[in-house]
Amino acid sequence: MLVSALLTSLAINSGLCILFFVLYSILRKQPSNYAVYVPRLLAEGKSKRRSHFNLERLIPSPTWLKNAWKLSEEELLSSSGLDAVVFMRLITFSLKVFSFAGIIGIFVLLPVNCTGELHIVDFTNLPNNSLDVFTISNIGNGSKRLWIHFSAVYVVTIFICYLLYYEYRYISSKRMAYFYSSKPQPHHFTILVHSIPVSVESSVSESVDRFFSEYHPSTYLSHIVIHRTNRLRSLINDAKQLYGRLTHLKSDDTQQKYHRSCCFGLCGRKVDLTDEYEKQLVDIEKNLRLEQSEVSSSGHKEARAAFVSFKSRLGAAIAFHLPQSSNPIEWVTEEAPEPDDVYWPFFSSSFMHRWISKLTVVVACITLTILFLVPVLIVQGLTNLSQLKTWFPFLESILTIKIVSQVITGYLPSLILQLFLKAVPPIMKFLSSIQGYISHSNIEKSACNKVLWFTIWNVFFATVFSGTAIYVVDIFLEPKQIPGKLAVAVPAQASFFIAYVVTTGWTSVCSELFRIIPFSFSLIKRPFTRSTDHELEVPSLPYHKDIPRILFFALLGITYFFLAPLILPFLLLYLCLGYIIYSNQFINVYAPRYESAGKFWPIVHDSIIFSLVLMHAIAVGIFTLKKLSLASSLICPLPIFTLLFNDYCRKRFL
Amino acid sequence: MLVSALLTSLAINSGLCILFFVLYSILRKQPSNYAVYVPRLLAEGKSKRRSHFNLERLIPSPTWLKNAWKLSEEELLSSSGLDAVVFMRLITFSLKVFSFAGIIGIFVLLPVNCTGELHIVDFTNLPNNSLDVFTISNIGNGSKRLWIHFSAVYVVTIFICYLLYYEYRYISSKRMAYFYSSKPQPHHFTILVHSIPVSVESSVSESVDRFFSEYHPSTYLSHIVIHRTNRLRSLINDAKQLYGRLTHLKSDDTQQKYHRSCCFGLCGRKVDLTDEYEKQLVDIEKNLRLEQSEVSSSGHKEARAAFVSFKSRLGAAIAFHLPQSSNPIEWVTEEAPEPDDVYWPFFSSSFMHRWISKLTVVVACITLTILFLVPVLIVQGLTNLSQLKTWFPFLESILTIKIVSQVITGYLPSLILQLFLKAVPPIMKFLSSIQGYISHSNIEKSACNKVLWFTIWNVFFATVFSGTAIYVVDIFLEPKQIPGKLAVAVPAQASFFIAYVVTTGWTSVCSELFRIIPFSFSLIKRPFTRSTDHELEVPSLPYHKDIPRILFFALLGITYFFLAPLILPFLLLYLCLGYIIYSNQFINVYAPRYESAGKFWPIVHDSIIFSLVLMHAIAVGIFTLKKLSLASSLICPLPIFTLLFNDYCRKRFL
Repeated sequence: MLVSALLTSLAINSGLCILFFVLYSILRKQPSNYAVYVPRLLAEGKSKRRSHFNLERLIPSPTWLKNAWKLSEEELLSSSGLDAVVFMRLITFSLKVFSFAGIIGIFVLLPVNCTGELHIVDFTNLPNNSLDVFTISNIGNGSKRLWIHFSAVYVVTIFICYLLYYEYRYISSKRMAYFYSSKPQPHHFTILVHSIPVSVESSVSESVDRFFSEYHPSTYLSHIVIHRTNRLRSLINDAKQLYGRLTHLKSDDTQQKYHRSCCFGLCGRKVDLTDEYEKQLVDIEKNLRLEQSEVSSSGHKEARAAFVSFKSRLGAAIAFHLPQSSNPIEWVTEEAPEPDDVYWPFFSSSFMHRWISKLTVVVACITLTILFLVPVLIVQGLTNLSQLKTWFPFLESILTIKIVSQVITGYLPSLILQLFLKAVPPIMKFLSSIQGYISHSNIEKSACNKVLWFTIWNVFFATVFSGTAIYVVDIFLEPKQIPGKLAVAVPAQASFFIAYVVTTGWTSVCSELFRIIPFSFSLIKRPFTRSTDHELEVPSLPYHKDIPRILFFALLGITYFFLAPLILPFLLLYLCLGYIIYSNQFINVYAPRYESAGKFWPIVHDSIIFSLVLMHAIAVGIFTLKKLSLASSLICPLPIFTLLFNDYCRKRFL
Repeated sequence: MLVSALLTSLAINSGLCILFFVLYSILRKQPSNYAVYVPRLLAEGKSKRRSHFNLERLIPSPTWLKNAWKLSEEELLSSSGLDAVVFMRLITFSLKVFSFAGIIGIFVLLPVNCTGELHIVDFTNLPNNSLDVFTISNIGNGSKRLWIHFSAVYVVTIFICYLLYYEYRYISSKRMAYFYSSKPQPHHFTILVHSIPVSVESSVSESVDRFFSEYHPSTYLSHIVIHRTNRLRSLINDAKQLYGRLTHLKSDDTQQKYHRSCCFGLCGRKVDLTDEYEKQLVDIEKNLRLEQSEVSSSGHKEARAAFVSFKSRLGAAIAFHLPQSSNPIEWVTEEAPEPDDVYWPFFSSSFMHRWISKLTVVVACITLTILFLVPVLIVQGLTNLSQLKTWFPFLESILTIKIVSQVITGYLPSLILQLFLKAVPPIMKFLSSIQGYISHSNIEKSACNKVLWFTIWNVFFATVFSGTAIYVVDIFLEPKQIPGKLAVAVPAQASFFIAYVVTTGWTSVCSELFRIIPFSFSLIKRPFTRSTDHELEVPSLPYHKDIPRILFFALLGITYFFLAPLILPFLLLYLCLGYIIYSNQFINVYAPRYESAGKFWPIVHDSIIFSLVLMHAIAVGIFTLKKLSLASSLICPLPIFTLLFNDYCRKRFL
């Protein structure tokens, strides 16, 4: 890749970013977009829909930038919870790491690379230089200059480990403070017990009561057996919907209050809608009562799980920590999730059911991760120009225009890949949801992990080895040769990943700011619906999508900082954008629905440790390749100490 | 190897076994050998030293065989504890497995192998047949007969898994019964707390008291801070020894009561020994009092660890299971070991100290395991005939005799290997003891694991690949090629391992019966000492030496049963011998010193699972090698299901 190509891409993407910022600054002030850009403020009543027009609405203003910049951690903690703090600290952590690495990279490594033995930078015609002159590839075999890179690897590793330790300690203390400061709440006093063994003559409720009265006599308070109430819940939902329509109908005089009773409202006698709805409501109420009495009376709707409450937090903690039964797969206890965090489908399932679900999901997930690129490549292969012409003959005249065909052949494959990639976080979340978790926060945490490894495999390794899935798997089945193969393949993709940060990275944060998909939806829906404030649902940040993305860029930064330090300025800019934009979104858009209390940090920690070890493996390979075997041997203790450090942190912090 | 060679070896070793049995039957009846052969009965007072002579003492009698055979599990449990039961069940489990596999192997697989395509058994001259005609090597590539082996692999795997499950359930129920039946004992009410943080102004004792009074007010009873009392203990030992000598002196009139005060008792004035000892005792007592008062008064001898006792077992369990501190490396709790089981050196060490000890031991252990054969090979290389002649010139005349030189060149290398191997269990136990455990039973368990993997690596893999350590490590760094390499190498060593079972296996159990080393020691010591009953120390069975040995033979049986079914009869005989001999030793020799309550079973379980998976890997390789790729693909689900089964068992049983 030439410098000029990078500059072009840089110009286009900077332009796009500025355009997004300006558009956002204007659009966010239009009352019709409030539901998209400030749903949180709207829901909290801090922002009112004003319909009067003024000129100020059309002039982009940077006040939101100032507000986002000024957001302090205390404000964030009180408004969006500990998870948001952890998320923002991930960004500031990366900023610190890459500022430090950036100083070393730009002021030390870059000059060393540029003055390397293999190519000489042509300063008179900078844009026509290859990007390779800025990378480690420019340094000849056995050169003493490589010791500078060697020292950089050591210094940066030590710096990152030092930061990781302090960050983990900080998050850990925040977690502690969160638990100390939170008021007593019902779920602190409660545990969930599942896989309750039942005998023929007694019900689940009686078993639970007998068991806990016997073994926890002084602390046991009460219990609620969980019932299978799918029908009941659907009835309640129906009733709510009908009630909403009815009140709307009664309050609003402009609506049509009659319809005809058959043939899709076209013929038959006229019916008063209000009466109709009221009659339906009465029916539903009767069904509800029936169902309720059935649920409470009959035992066959009882799930073999119960919420058990204790008189003190200590009592609940004791019951949770002590093994309850001599058979470890009966009377299994879990901490009760927050009420908003409960995920019901797995309450009734037994230990075996959960175990099998988990195994199935693990297999599905590994298969998906490894074989994901196979269907993508097939689809990309199918959607070539001539194929499109046969499928959509009416487009033929357009497709023959040169520029259209160029755009299609150029962008279609990458568009298809992006579409497939977009589908991954929801798929992973779905897989996690059938894995046996009983809380949304655990599902999200598990999905976060899955998406992270998926991204590392399918974007990093698949690009680096640019081969088929089987080939990449093959490489990992011969662990001895990994460093060598990485050393050949990774530097070759340096310019691709620099461009990747500029294009995908910058675009992704800007589209996060602009909220393209909700915005398009609202544009499409607007003519058909009359949205009211109380129907507005405030979204929560999809951590399982955004944390892996930032972690992946951190991985790129860590692995490439000594190979191609040119990646660092772009990465820093990405992180700065991220900092401002996510701060803004936390203020305006996202509200937390539940709190995992900082449980995402261990994922961040592990991922950074993995990036470090990967970087060391590449360094070992590179130094061997460059015939500096002493350096490659001296790198070897580094991954060992990094892994030991990780082990220590896991033991040291809860 | 020819059949005749095997028959010779068989004859020699059977003869040796019978000789050992006869010798044992006579020697055990000699009162001078009671301390070697029936120390337990002697200590329990069930057997008295009779000095009168009768003829019966010289005639070998098989009564001990009958007694050993009749020993029931209840008797064993009550006399030698749960660990002994687990040990005997390991033998009966192996007997069941290899009886089943033996029936299939001898009546199905062996005829199939004999009538194979490659060689024809020469029944007229059986001893001159190669052993290969009885193995799978005799079957041609792509032969349909291999499906019989394939089915055998499936059937035996399923049978072993079935047995493993029932055995684990049985042991688990025995463990439960053991805990239910044991009377309340102090260590049930006590936990060990270490890494206690101390402030400057308060002592450890005050910290502990304040902490547990605050957080466990209703159940906390008392505590004992642990002091560093090495000096005190050595004084007490001195006093005991002196006291023993003194009482001996006073009770026995025949002993010399005077010695001279200097020059090794040769000159100087005569001193009354009784007076001398009494004076020393008074001195020691004074020192003891001084030391005791110093220990109890000064804080600097306090270790940062304490035994904390509670009013109920539940109280102790709660304190053990709940995390005590927000910093997980402070106030670390462990279950208090039985009083006889306590191992003191690691009580005072901090979390970091233990962690580093553990890492060091792991590294040392892996290094020892992998590189063990290097020094052995060097020593074997050094001790050739010409080298011996230069070292010991005076032996030259003997070494030139043909038969001596043959014996030396033939047996010396294997003798050296055996000597080195004998040193391994003590070394591994030493390594485990500096790993940070606070109870002997945990040390023994950990040593058991280490010895097991050491044996598998250095006897199985080193023999199979018969290469250098680096070569064997290399094979495991390319996981894809393991089955292929195993398939080539393992069957080639079939005759070696058949001979190994006959020689090393049979000899090892017979020498266990005969107790060669204690017997030789007692022979040497006898002229110098006058042993009395109360000095007699009853040994306990070194599980870390014997469990790995039996497990290793089980591994041989499982991996070779479908390759060379001829190994099975010899293995069965080994196990029968083992059953009788160990039963006998439990009755007469070994007494338990502490109880791990069946914690050795998970090691057995894991080892059998490993053997199964190894066997499947070999089967995959063999079927690929024999060009029956369908069979090798159909084997693949088997290891997966075996591992899943293992995972289930770990979750299902405590």
